[in-house]
Amino acid sequence: MSAAVSPLAPKSIPALPPVPGVRFATAEAGIRYKGRTDVLFVALAPGTQAAGVFTRSKCPSAAVEWCRAQLKGGEARGLLVNSGNANAFTGMKGRDAVRLSAALAGRALGVAPETMFVASTGVIGEPLDATKFDGVLGAAAARFAEGPWDAAARAIMTTDTFPKVATRTVEIGGVPVVLNGIAKGAGMIAPDMATMLSFVFTDAAIAPAVLQRLLARSVERSFNAITVDSDTSTSDTLMLFATGAAESRGQKRIESAADVDLRAFARALDEITLDLAHQVVKDGEGARKFVAVTVTGATTRRSAKRVALSIANSPLVKTAIAGEDANWGRIVMAVGKAGEPAERDRLSIWFGDVRVAREGARDPDYSEAAASAVMREADIPIRVDLGLGGGTATVWTCDLTKEYVAINGDYRS
Amino acid sequence: MSAAVSPLAPKSIPALPPVPGVRFATAEAGIRYKGRTDVLFVALAPGTQAAGVFTRSKCPSAAVEWCRAQLKGGEARGLLVNSGNANAFTGMKGRDAVRLSAALAGRALGVAPETMFVASTGVIGEPLDATKFDGVLGAAAARFAEGPWDAAARAIMTTDTFPKVATRTVEIGGVPVVLNGIAKGAGMIAPDMATMLSFVFTDAAIAPAVLQRLLARSVERSFNAITVDSDTSTSDTLMLFATGAAESRGQKRIESAADVDLRAFARALDEITLDLAHQVVKDGEGARKFVAVTVTGATTRRSAKRVALSIANSPLVKTAIAGEDANWGRIVMAVGKAGEPAERDRLSIWFGDVRVAREGARDPDYSEAAASAVMREADIPIRVDLGLGGGTATVWTCDLTKEYVAINGDYRS
Repeated sequence: MSAAVSPLAPKSIPALPPVPGVRFATAEAGIRYKGRTDVLFVALAPGTQAAGVFTRSKCPSAAVEWCRAQLKGGEARGLLVNSGNANAFTGMKGRDAVRLSAALAGRALGVAPETMFVASTGVIGEPLDATKFDGVLGAAAARFAEGPWDAAARAIMTTDTFPKVATRTVEIGGVPVVLNGIAKGAGMIAPDMATMLSFVFTDAAIAPAVLQRLLARSVERSFNAITVDSDTSTSDTLMLFATGAAESRGQKRIESAADVDLRAFARALDEITLDLAHQVVKDGEGARKFVAVTVTGATTRRSAKRVALSIANSPLVKTAIAGEDANWGRIVMAVGKAGEPAERDRLSIWFGDVRVAREGARDPDYSEAAASAVMREADIPIRVDLGLGGGTATVWTCDLTKEYVAINGDYRS
Repeated sequence: MSAAVSPLAPKSIPALPPVPGVRFATAEAGIRYKGRTDVLFVALAPGTQAAGVFTRSKCPSAAVEWCRAQLKGGEARGLLVNSGNANAFTGMKGRDAVRLSAALAGRALGVAPETMFVASTGVIGEPLDATKFDGVLGAAAARFAEGPWDAAARAIMTTDTFPKVATRTVEIGGVPVVLNGIAKGAGMIAPDMATMLSFVFTDAAIAPAVLQRLLARSVERSFNAITVDSDTSTSDTLMLFATGAAESRGQKRIESAADVDLRAFARALDEITLDLAHQVVKDGEGARKFVAVTVTGATTRRSAKRVALSIANSPLVKTAIAGEDANWGRIVMAVGKAGEPAERDRLSIWFGDVRVAREGARDPDYSEAAASAVMREADIPIRVDLGLGGGTATVWTCDLTKEYVAINGDYRS
């Protein structure tokens, strides 16, 4: 755990409004950390619908397997998240721990365990002692409230240095609905999925198939477009819960993703996932620079994204940024290694507004001083034009610093 | 440039024997460095045959493009290598610089420029001033000698902290032949190709098609099985030159890769490329640990190698090794993200001889103290058994340290 807050952290944490149908509490179960909350326990109103996107790891955590299975089941009545232990690669014990967690949570809420969703984050490979939930869930249920949301975000932090929240209020057919999101990230952040854990809650009434479609689309340009260190967690989970409470205020339930009344909601969801994804990058372990890598002129959007990720994942690019060095040669290297269509003699590269290279060579008008000024900023936009087609993509990353090495060389021991 | 020699460097640099038909000199052209050699100029006997394997980057350097083209031409009469400037991403100027380099080198040797091979390593994107060769190549040619080989290896170093050489003497049909290899590496090291520059010289008489086949096979388990930072250089070059001088001592020229007389030579070539590849890893920027990652039980050898590289390239695995932390959870993560067939409940993991995990969970007999003892060594073998099939592969890497970040955050500026 890093003591200092990331220099890229937002200046203030906004206060989030309540989401009708969502009540929660946090608790200290002492799973790993002492003197801080490590449990988030959420109760969802009857009829709540859920959607989820999970890690593509071939070795997912037991909790991910549970959530995937329960998503097929219909109603979601609760969510239990713990930090400190990922309950990943814990074999049969891991599955037992998830089952026990869901049973304990269901009992505390008076609902079936199969309507509970669970998520765990923290150390991999250590058995999770789910009996520790036993002592705290009942008391937590007695404290259920509609806030404060930053406390919910804090309870799920691991090496994060600040809680990540985002909120939007939009109208569906003239009826206002709220979307609140929380996330935790920090390390082991890479696309598919980028975030380790993120949860978005809304009181909108939307059919589960529509929710799933919105979420899958939203993740592609947010959590799946960020990378801290190219490592993919076994536990990555993004879920969207819709309580439907707005129906009682006259919101007509949305049954189709093509419904025009859904547009503002879909845009708000995109904004929240992007906002949270950016916060995850800004809290990347040891991060001091927030880097947006935009690739234009690729043969396809998919190709543009691959080239952008090759740049964003390159240790040599990331260390150069840490050193405030406008080292565009390393950008060329990263373009070249991506394996996507690229022609050296058509490449142009910008740091901020400063074009440093064009047509396969250094820009004759290139000013080292102007490029260096860009590199000293906290936000660094890098743009590469491949000059081949219309494919465009942007991904976000941070620099690779000595602090990243220090944090990760001394995490478990 | 790092001042201190890598703690993983060999205790001593061996003295290499002459290779009949190979004469060389080094020079100070002042391309970038002051007070050290930055040019290696090699003369090859008439009739010398060459083979080469180059970067798979889509943005290769001008020198790589030149060598690829000249390889089709037959005889190789010389090699000119400079350090300090990679002449990569330098557009038309880069091609002009290569042509001028080959012309100047050919003139100094009295041979056609098309029989010259050239290689450059160093900063990318800065124009190479090839006129600087003009003043030094004639004088270098006057100093041509059969050694010393460590001086040749030193002249091509960039951030390397020690010169990399290897030698073998074997018999072909009862006639002894020599193989001498040199390499430089340090950063931007990743498979396809791993080394930035490596050259092997022999006096054996072997047909060029056979040389090419031997080299391509040899590289797969050596330079293409190492990774320092997953970054692929634009300049990676491995060449094998065979002068054929042993023919005058009665060696019958080898025309077929299946010739049984070639076996010892092929094995020696494999040993040299592996030896040099290991030295490149041991001089990885900031490296303090030499890590061998072996994956067994994969569905195929190709799959095993992909999983092994996923582990070897993971920043979280590499920082854990830097911290001497037997963090096998991160190994699981890296297995999972490789995208290859893997079943959590069949995974077993060893650090050295210590099995830390089996059947998808922590090994009940696992001793943290024994695992920690392994991690304190300089050589760290990691083995992962996937329990699925017979595919096996080993790759080599180093740890990711704060020094790597320091070296690469401050290389160009």
